[in-house]
This record gives sequence, structure tokens and C-alpha cells, in this order.
Amino acid sequence: MSLSKNKLKYIRSLKDKKFRSEYNTFVAEGNKLVSDLLPYMKCQLLVGTEAFLSTLHTLDVEEVIEAEQHQLDQVSFLKNPQQALAVFYQIETDAEIDFSDQLLLALDGIQDPGNLGTIIRLADWYGIRHIFCSVDTADVYNPKVVQATMGALARVNVHYVDLAEFLEKHNNIPVYGTLLDGQNMYEQEITRNGIIVMGNEGNGIRPEIECLITKKLYIPNYPVGDPTSESLNVAIATAIICAEFRRRSF
Amino acid sequence: MSLSKNKLKYIRSLKDKKFRSEYNTFVAEGNKLVSDLLPYMKCQLLVGTEAFLSTLHTLDVEEVIEAEQHQLDQVSFLKNPQQALAVFYQIETDAEIDFSDQLLLALDGIQDPGNLGTIIRLADWYGIRHIFCSVDTADVYNPKVVQATMGALARVNVHYVDLAEFLEKHNNIPVYGTLLDGQNMYEQEITRNGIIVMGNEGNGIRPEIECLITKKLYIPNYPVGDPTSESLNVAIATAIICAEFRRRSF
Repeated sequence: MSLSKNKLKYIRSLKDKKFRSEYNTFVAEGNKLVSDLLPYMKCQLLVGTEAFLSTLHTLDVEEVIEAEQHQLDQVSFLKNPQQALAVFYQIETDAEIDFSDQLLLALDGIQDPGNLGTIIRLADWYGIRHIFCSVDTADVYNPKVVQATMGALARVNVHYVDLAEFLEKHNNIPVYGTLLDGQNMYEQEITRNGIIVMGNEGNGIRPEIECLITKKLYIPNYPVGDPTSESLNVAIATAIICAEFRRRSF
Repeated sequence: MSLSKNKLKYIRSLKDKKFRSEYNTFVAEGNKLVSDLLPYMKCQLLVGTEAFLSTLHTLDVEEVIEAEQHQLDQVSFLKNPQQALAVFYQIETDAEIDFSDQLLLALDGIQDPGNLGTIIRLADWYGIRHIFCSVDTADVYNPKVVQATMGALARVNVHYVDLAEFLEKHNNIPVYGTLLDGQNMYEQEITRNGIIVMGNEGNGIRPEIECLITKKLYIPNYPVGDPTSESLNVAIATAIICAEFRRRSF
């Protein structure tokens, strides 16, 4: 069976959040990413070259379409299309979470899809299973986010919530945030559990969220206090703070 | 004076490495980035709206062109053009470097401009003044790299070298690298000086470079040894290892 015009149109429509929400699906591309996600996620449609499909073993997929490379090139969102593209169903995020014993991330308006994807990937590296995003954070099923997660999407739950409400509800656990007026994180006590809040690329953490942070931390630069180096990319800052929390939990 | 067709063509040509090398110039865009670079770098041409130009004080620029927003939109490499664009001369990198007392980065074939720009920005944060790149690493003057550095370009010297030759020449200083078969970095002695080698996004460090690494390090994931989380983005890994080197130097 080849790729019909309707299928092509359907896949392309999933670049748009509106249609992703309507169909409750999203696109992942690339031989490695598709192979990595297939065992963990419900797949509606798999499009691949004969060579790619022959590398897969048993398949639990609603529909498989063997396509020529030029058809994949046509439908792909990537600059360098590969031999596989899959449409997966969006993930139902766990409803029951024990907040008392784990480290979580909260993202306040992260805009760049690459940053969000990279943060999901590093959360996976550090065993962080839940990320809570303000509703204006980039969409986790944006193709650029999906690509940047490198498969971590199957292991990290991303929730969209009213962040202020969420933090107020969980005010019995420590809420950390990195802020320029915070305390040197290497000199502060940190806990094994808690929520780490990271803010928007340009504007940082919103005032109504900042006031809910119970421990303000600062990532020291080097030499400490050098005024010339201004800031870190938000995914980089998230990585450095998560690494430090985990280092002290080993 | 307005933006002539020739100027427009010239600026656009600088998207191409060939022309950047020919003219020895590059483009930086955005009100903040341009304002941040102007005091430090030699500017050939500054294009800005009247509103933007009025925010600047004394200007040491060869040519200033006041432009309408629609002209900036036309010439811009950005998805969301701003009110300023500047053509700067490429930086002469310092010839004399004392390798014995500082931390340096070496990049072996980093391909993604965003990754390279982010690494330059975090090098600046951690007071790393020199980055040595293999000749097949992304070009530091690629507009996407320039944008991702957020002004750090003025403070970090990026050199393109034969990396194997470079490391062989400096075999009297420690050469660190992150590798999957490395030792847990938290359990290893590290020095205040040395070279940290980071590898290509897909293929890691080349064998001919790996054999020149004297201390192989590993960034532990959490829980340690969890086999499901596979890898970190290279800029993220660079950040975590640089943060750890600096933490232990405070």
C-alpha cells in the first residue's frame, strides 16, 4: 500500500497543534527515534522504506505503509528526511503521582521547542519522571520538541497545568528556582525531593510564580561574580542544577 | 541613507561561509545582541531603525544606515526580525596562549550551530577563554551560531585547528574527555587546568582523538547505571562537566 494523498495531508496537518489535539496524535521521525519509541508507545501509522521496515521485528501498529524514499521526503518535517516516520497516539499522563519522594521539574513559559525537548531528554537522564509546564509553554508534541527528546518522551510525563495553582496545592514540598538574587547552590542544603522551577528564555520566572519559590538558588559563574558573562541558556541551567541535585543524592 | 540593493545583497551573501571568509565579516542580529557586541567588536555596517539607533551613544562604526522595519524584515536571517542588524569584522584570535594555567575546550566535529553557540555561551559563563575546534566543526560565524552565543562571542576565542596535531603538541597538560567507558567524574581527581574534549552529536569522539585523551570521564545518570536513558545532548554534557570542574576549583 502506498502513501495516499489523504494520508499525506493528515500527516502534514500534525505540524499544527490544533490538529494534533483534534486527532490526539503526533509525528516522530527518523530511523532511531521511531525504533526507540515503537516498543513503548501506541502507533497509529508507520511509514517506512522497505529497508527500514525489514529491520523491525514484531510490530504492534494499526497501519504500516511501505513507501519510497521520495514519498518520505515529501511528507517529512525534517531538513534531512530519513527512512521512517510514525504517527503515535498522545500519551495519557499518570494521574497518581507521589510528590513526597521525587524530584520534579516545573517550566514557566519555555518557548523554544529545542529547549523543551532537550530538557525532557536530560530529565530522563536524571530519572525525573514528571515535568509540569505552564499552559503557555511550548507543546510537547511539536515535531521539533519530539525530535530533540531523542526518545525520552516515552519515559518522561509532561503535564500542562495552571502553574501557580499547582505550586500552591503542593506547598508542603520544597520549591526551588534559579534566580539571579538566589543563594549559591553549592552552599545551600538541598533535598532529594522537591520541584525545580525554570523560567522563560527572555523573561525568566513570572512574579506570581517566583513568590511561590521557597528556596532561591543561584548557579555561580567562574570566576565567581564576573559581571561580563550574563546568562545561561535555560536548558543548560536546568542541566547544571539537576546534575547538582543528583550528585548530592548519590 | 537607505539600504541599497547592493548592501542588501552583500548582507545576504554572508549567510554563506564562502563569502564570510572572502570578506572576513559576519552578521549579528537583534537589538540586544548588536548592542552587546558593539563596544567590543569592530563594526563595518550597522543597520537599525531610527528608534533603535537613538538608544545608542557614541558609535565607532564605519557605516550606519537608518532603515525602515520592512527593510530589516527583508534582509534578516531571523524568523522574527528585530530592529537592528550589524556586520562585524571577524575576530583575530590570540596567538599567545598560556596553556599551563587554564581550562580549555576542544570540539571534535560538533555539527549543530545551536549546540556550538550554546557551548560558546556557557564557556563564557565558566571563564573558559579558548575553544579549539576540529576543522569540520560548524563555523563560529554561521548566523545561527552567532545568535545562540548571546554576545559571548566577544569574550571567547574560537580556533580551528588540526585537533590531533594540537593535542599531540600539548601532551604535557591533562586531556579530559567524556566517554561511555570513562570513570565516574565525581570520583576522579581533576585539575584546574587542562583540555576537555567533546565529540560529534552522533558519533562522539573520533578514535584518533580518543587515543590522545589521558583521563576518560563519565557523567553518571540517575539512578546510576539506569540503562533506559541513553545519552545527553553534547551542549548539556559540556555544561555539566564544566560546572563540575569549576565547582571543584572554587
